[in-house]
Amino acid sequence: MNNDRFSPIHGMIRRALEEDLGPGDATTRATVAPDTLGEAILIAGEKLILAGMAVFKQTFLEIDPTLVFVARYRDRDVVPEGSTVCRIRGRLTAILSGERTALNFLQRMSGIATLTHRYVEKVKDSRAKILDTRKTAPGLRWCDKFAVRTGGGQNHRFGLFDGILIKDNHIAVAGSISKAVSLAREGSAHTLRVEVEVEDLAGVSEACKAGADIILLDNMKPPEMKEAVSLINGSALVEASGGITLDTVGDIASTGVDFISVGALTHSPEAADFSLEISHVES
Amino acid sequence: MNNDRFSPIHGMIRRALEEDLGPGDATTRATVAPDTLGEAILIAGEKLILAGMAVFKQTFLEIDPTLVFVARYRDRDVVPEGSTVCRIRGRLTAILSGERTALNFLQRMSGIATLTHRYVEKVKDSRAKILDTRKTAPGLRWCDKFAVRTGGGQNHRFGLFDGILIKDNHIAVAGSISKAVSLAREGSAHTLRVEVEVEDLAGVSEACKAGADIILLDNMKPPEMKEAVSLINGSALVEASGGITLDTVGDIASTGVDFISVGALTHSPEAADFSLEISHVES
Amino acid sequence: MNNDRFSPIHGMIRRALEEDLGPGDATTRATVAPDTLGEAILIAGEKLILAGMAVFKQTFLEIDPTLVFVARYRDRDVVPEGSTVCRIRGRLTAILSGERTALNFLQRMSGIATLTHRYVEKVKDSRAKILDTRKTAPGLRWCDKFAVRTGGGQNHRFGLFDGILIKDNHIAVAGSISKAVSLAREGSAHTLRVEVEVEDLAGVSEACKAGADIILLDNMKPPEMKEAVSLINGSALVEASGGITLDTVGDIASTGVDFISVGALTHSPEAADFSLEISHVES
Amino acid sequence: MNNDRFSPIHGMIRRALEEDLGPGDATTRATVAPDTLGEAILIAGEKLILAGMAVFKQTFLEIDPTLVFVARYRDRDVVPEGSTVCRIRGRLTAILSGERTALNFLQRMSGIATLTHRYVEKVKDSRAKILDTRKTAPGLRWCDKFAVRTGGGQNHRFGLFDGILIKDNHIAVAGSISKAVSLAREGSAHTLRVEVEVEDLAGVSEACKAGADIILLDNMKPPEMKEAVSLINGSALVEASGGITLDTVGDIASTGVDFISVGALTHSPEAADFSLEISHVES
Amino acid sequence: MNNDRFSPIHGMIRRALEEDLGPGDATTRATVAPDTLGEAILIAGEKLILAGMAVFKQTFLEIDPTLVFVARYRDRDVVPEGSTVCRIRGRLTAILSGERTALNFLQRMSGIATLTHRYVEKVKDSRAKILDTRKTAPGLRWCDKFAVRTGGGQNHRFGLFDGILIKDNHIAVAGSISKAVSLAREGSAHTLRVEVEVEDLAGVSEACKAGADIILLDNMKPPEMKEAVSLINGSALVEASGGITLDTVGDIASTGVDFISVGALTHSPEAADFSLEISHVES
Amino acid sequence: MNNDRFSPIHGMIRRALEEDLGPGDATTRATVAPDTLGEAILIAGEKLILAGMAVFKQTFLEIDPTLVFVARYRDRDVVPEGSTVCRIRGRLTAILSGERTALNFLQRMSGIATLTHRYVEKVKDSRAKILDTRKTAPGLRWCDKFAVRTGGGQNHRFGLFDGILIKDNHIAVAGSISKAVSLAREGSAHTLRVEVEVEDLAGVSEACKAGADIILLDNMKPPEMKEAVSLINGSALVEASGGITLDTVGDIASTGVDFISVGALTHSPEAADFSLEISHVES
Repeated sequence: MNNDRFSPIHGMIRRALEEDLGPGDATTRATVAPDTLGEAILIAGEKLILAGMAVFKQTFLEIDPTLVFVARYRDRDVVPEGSTVCRIRGRLTAILSGERTALNFLQRMSGIATLTHRYVEKVKDSRAKILDTRKTAPGLRWCDKFAVRTGGGQNHRFGLFDGILIKDNHIAVAGSISKAVSLAREGSAHTLRVEVEVEDLAGVSEACKAGADIILLDNMKPPEMKEAVSLINGSALVEASGGITLDTVGDIASTGVDFISVGALTHSPEAADFSLEISHVES
Repeated sequence: MNNDRFSPIHGMIRRALEEDLGPGDATTRATVAPDTLGEAILIAGEKLILAGMAVFKQTFLEIDPTLVFVARYRDRDVVPEGSTVCRIRGRLTAILSGERTALNFLQRMSGIATLTHRYVEKVKDSRAKILDTRKTAPGLRWCDKFAVRTGGGQNHRFGLFDGILIKDNHIAVAGSISKAVSLAREGSAHTLRVEVEVEDLAGVSEACKAGADIILLDNMKPPEMKEAVSLINGSALVEASGGITLDTVGDIASTGVDFISVGALTHSPEAADFSLEISHVES
Repeated sequence: MNNDRFSPIHGMIRRALEEDLGPGDATTRATVAPDTLGEAILIAGEKLILAGMAVFKQTFLEIDPTLVFVARYRDRDVVPEGSTVCRIRGRLTAILSGERTALNFLQRMSGIATLTHRYVEKVKDSRAKILDTRKTAPGLRWCDKFAVRTGGGQNHRFGLFDGILIKDNHIAVAGSISKAVSLAREGSAHTLRVEVEVEDLAGVSEACKAGADIILLDNMKPPEMKEAVSLINGSALVEASGGITLDTVGDIASTGVDFISVGALTHSPEAADFSLEISHVES
Repeated sequence: MNNDRFSPIHGMIRRALEEDLGPGDATTRATVAPDTLGEAILIAGEKLILAGMAVFKQTFLEIDPTLVFVARYRDRDVVPEGSTVCRIRGRLTAILSGERTALNFLQRMSGIATLTHRYVEKVKDSRAKILDTRKTAPGLRWCDKFAVRTGGGQNHRFGLFDGILIKDNHIAVAGSISKAVSLAREGSAHTLRVEVEVEDLAGVSEACKAGADIILLDNMKPPEMKEAVSLINGSALVEASGGITLDTVGDIASTGVDFISVGALTHSPEAADFSLEISHVES
Repeated sequence: MNNDRFSPIHGMIRRALEEDLGPGDATTRATVAPDTLGEAILIAGEKLILAGMAVFKQTFLEIDPTLVFVARYRDRDVVPEGSTVCRIRGRLTAILSGERTALNFLQRMSGIATLTHRYVEKVKDSRAKILDTRKTAPGLRWCDKFAVRTGGGQNHRFGLFDGILIKDNHIAVAGSISKAVSLAREGSAHTLRVEVEVEDLAGVSEACKAGADIILLDNMKPPEMKEAVSLINGSALVEASGGITLDTVGDIASTGVDFISVGALTHSPEAADFSLEISHVES
Repeated sequence: MNNDRFSPIHGMIRRALEEDLGPGDATTRATVAPDTLGEAILIAGEKLILAGMAVFKQTFLEIDPTLVFVARYRDRDVVPEGSTVCRIRGRLTAILSGERTALNFLQRMSGIATLTHRYVEKVKDSRAKILDTRKTAPGLRWCDKFAVRTGGGQNHRFGLFDGILIKDNHIAVAGSISKAVSLAREGSAHTLRVEVEVEDLAGVSEACKAGADIILLDNMKPPEMKEAVSLINGSALVEASGGITLDTVGDIASTGVDFISVGALTHSPEAADFSLEISHVES
């Protein structure tokens, strides 16, 4: 999220602006003269991990490329409550028309990063890494996954195309774990590892025998997970998943799994609290 | 959300599928023969208000228009925990490839509807109606606002173009509430009402004098709101906003305001719990 | 239409250029060396109200962002017949390839502004304002409505989403004016006024009783309109419409209506007369 | 304009509907129940040449593919004032939401066809054919040119890519008619004829010598045109252009030119008069 | 490539048709009446492996969804020279307008499949599998890779996102093979294997020690490859690449590598020879 | 292919990059720090005609507009084997991520130009010009035809819209050569010449009588072609086509035809050999 023009965020930003602006910002057009200059400040309403400043900034630049930004914090920073995060200077009509869309991005992304960070903190004394899932807001996966990385988490596969993950439904159709793993190994690119989801220790054994590269322990209790980790014994990577919360993540990490994937990071984040205030109007 | 082909959901669905499927579902292609037929069932993991069935269904139909859906519940229904919501029959590859994207829509939309419904229940003995805001997930406003209606709420303006809402920042630039209201009345379509945000009783008086059609009481305490309502005395519609929660919404409703707008409905909904399970594979 | 990049005109301009240029300008490529520099002048072939200079300019800039424009007139100016409106300097291939598309925009927009201005002049001694309608060239509504404002008119709602206008067909389905107005009030955003079209004095009375915010007198004769205005007596805004011409608009304005909407402004404007001439070729 | 899905009209229709419908038809949604069925009739308000029925129909079908159309007239028909042109049956919400956009297309296209027909009638006793130009509404060229053919005219090149037309500005840059014609012949596809615009008899001679395939007589008086035709004597096709009106077209045709191109056909057509009325509501 | 509507081919087909048809097929419109029905046959001009029939068929269906196809061969079939591959019945205008675009797809795809098949045949007695590369025609990767699979090859990663492949340039920047492999392992999704390109035996050793999952032997001679395979000894998968031809592929396969990637499959395929002939015109 | 922004290449480049980059370049992100600066050099692996440098450059600029290019060769140049064609300086992540896509364009385009040049050399002592056909890679026609011009060839019509070419299938439907030519002349724009494909001398005679502007001799032997040329005797342009190779093109040129169209130029070009190497990393 540097000055690389070629990421999917431009399309996301344009669509979000089109959705909000439609044929025009009726209130701003009526109340603010087009050439009024001034400054606005972005204020954090709570302590948070900042994520999404490039999207925030680009949203305004899509409206007016001449706006100037002076940032005091950057992505990954812990921002204290009440801090001024950045200043925006230029045409006030552009700032007012872009405000809500820019904040909608920033609040979601910083909310995800802040939540991720809390999970990461809980497992910092273990080997486990916190992963996201594909349970993202439709159309916003790139932003959601970027925010997870910003909060200290690691990304699982982006979509259905850059990882093999055999789930219960695939096993149901293929007939057995062994059969599914073997079909996956035969029928997919050699650049992808084969991961398989299992629900009990019998599944773990079968997955090991079938030669899975990664074993996903779904909805197991910590003691059973511990046994699974010992059964696998390094022959495959181990991932835990299934309704994991801030209360349970620590116990799960202590079972020795390599990865813990948490759907809530992206399916139910709370928006971080930000506001934008006009701090100066040039007369 | 009937059989009307012309809504923004088709674009949203295509983009969400492109994001998840990219060049193809590697796992399903490797493990499931293209013509395997079968059935999957959609199960509610908790009690919820159903919202988004048309989007859920259309997501799968974009992949395979021959899939057949048999629904037991419809949008607006209260679905008990553990219920089978619908059955999907047809090619299992299409069902497996569309599953996550379809669930991502349905879980967000039903989450919003369920949360809205809880707010609506809290104010049912007052005149107040629950409104949404523009604090939606970027690119998903249509779905978010549809879900609010489905949960019993009412929509505020869709974007910056179908309502005049003069906020603190516009007032700061215009110079005063009176000036801003007058500019808005002069410079906007006669089909739009003029709404203005005020923060205290002095603001309320000024807004009334300026002839605002709607007065938005921002972050006032209930006793002050009550006074404002009595001051306005029917000369304008009254809306309350600002950090309203399920705990405070009842008191606010009892002040006599006409509308209460709640950002949390769409900026921080919890995903409703659903799962999709293959219930039958044709051999 | 300042340096705001985020308006629908960019898409309109690109589509218009794609339509005209397709795989390339065969004549210019064959007859003009790519690096020939020079100047062209834009000449008004008749007295007109200038509208659309930003679109005119942007059309050329889409082809070659290095062209330089020196304008002698701006939008809203009355341009005398034969005047040089602006000069364009730079690569002549870009000027020649963009000429027709740029002129097509400018001629339509200035044609609409000039016509609007003539209507506005006719009613300048009354309270009535001239409004446009949704009878615009498909895909060009933003330009058409911009041109009406530039000519001194005021915009009616942009589309079906930013105003409530109950027409004869809605009343036919709803059953009565009263029923339709009441359904509209209940079922639409509180930010929108409710306007209803009526055809006679009985309709006017019913609309008043139903609490319509705006009453549209459709195809009434001036004496009947005058009676309607007096019947309404300030309880609603009053708009007149229906086959209004430059000959009749004055009489209608004198009935005391607040607004007069004129479809012909945008459905049948005459193109304003402009030409572009190469004034200098650098050798 | 048969059942061919692959023409540019689908994009035009979708954009026009998006422009008018945005996030939804507020009035219809509030006043008409989604499943109300009924019938509407399309009525011609004046005598006209019908053009654009496929676009008219497809506009509604984009909203609801289950609507049924029963047409009494087809494109190219002369429709008497007051006639019912077609009936539309199905969901009334779809009919009401599509009405304005469908009519905007049909009124423009039939207006162009009707005007073209009047020109064609004026020259029917000569060898001259009426041509259109590239002076079309931006983005609507396909429709505008289709309408000209429907009215009995013939299309000039569609854009800058399917015909060579050397105009005054190209000659100014190339240095002379001879040089421009020779460059065009060398540098363009052998599938295209070379046409050159000239303003006087000297130009005609030079163009003939240079081997132009078509000579465009721009803004000449009929006697001079007649001389030009005789000078050319069949060695090239002859086209006349320049401010031609219904009053002057007959005289020009009688000079013996092969083609007469008329910009007004598409830059200043008057919208044909149509209305759509709900004729039946199912109860 | 079954009846799945959601693959990238629809966009490819539409763009290819737009490119060829532009505003319309001038020859067909002029010479064939719109409703003429008939039949065309697709003939293979040489022995080939058929690939791309779904794209071929869909190209025509985009123009006219009522065309009927009767196929005698399917993808993967060896088609003898002179065979009739399929029959197409319906409106001849649609068949004529789609012919070239449909053939362009089919000839490229069958050319790739036929070439791939020749490579696959050469290595059928070894363990080696033939892989493609990312050296595809820009915008056509999905088709090119589909054709490779159809010809019996296996796909390498689709793009830069679904496989880690550390090449000489990455190593140059990272500083060493070990450093690059370690950075890749740390910084990428756990679902991806890490592949590294090496040029000599020293590189092979370093890659093994660094824990690479796949080692790509670039431009090595067969004897050196054999030594590399024995050095790696099953601790990583082995891929060979670099200017491999039909003459050299057999020797390379016999070195014991697991995969051989061949750029020529997709960067320089010869178009397969097909023609389409009208076999019947209904009178 | 100068600094003209308005050509179809931008869309082609973006789609090619999206196809290759998807959600991101996994290898580069993991192994190269975002701000590492350096230089890469483009090397020609064989003697070739350079074509496509603007597309090559623009591909990188889409990713990072701050990259700097220093070119030693330009389009149309003969580049000796082993030459450094250009240097690229800037962020190495952008160079690495764009490398493959940029090379894919350049290798195809230079391959086409080099092949075209070889055909052009073979006929340089005749009057014949080498033409391309519509047998291009779907979606890449603009690039393919640009490359043909760069190699010294001339373009045939771009698509079905900018030339009339009556082929065997059209004649089969129309009934006869005469009928088809006459329909084409009547029903198409006067700016287009009428070309007709014939297979024998009888066809040639009929085409001449029918007044065809161009006669295409399909699959004739040189002696028959010579006879055809003499039969036509300048009354029409003459084009030869049908399986022409580098071996046969010289003989065909010596028959006196005006044009020779060669499908192989664009349907089966061999990719030119280029490589990109990091030459410097700033530390």
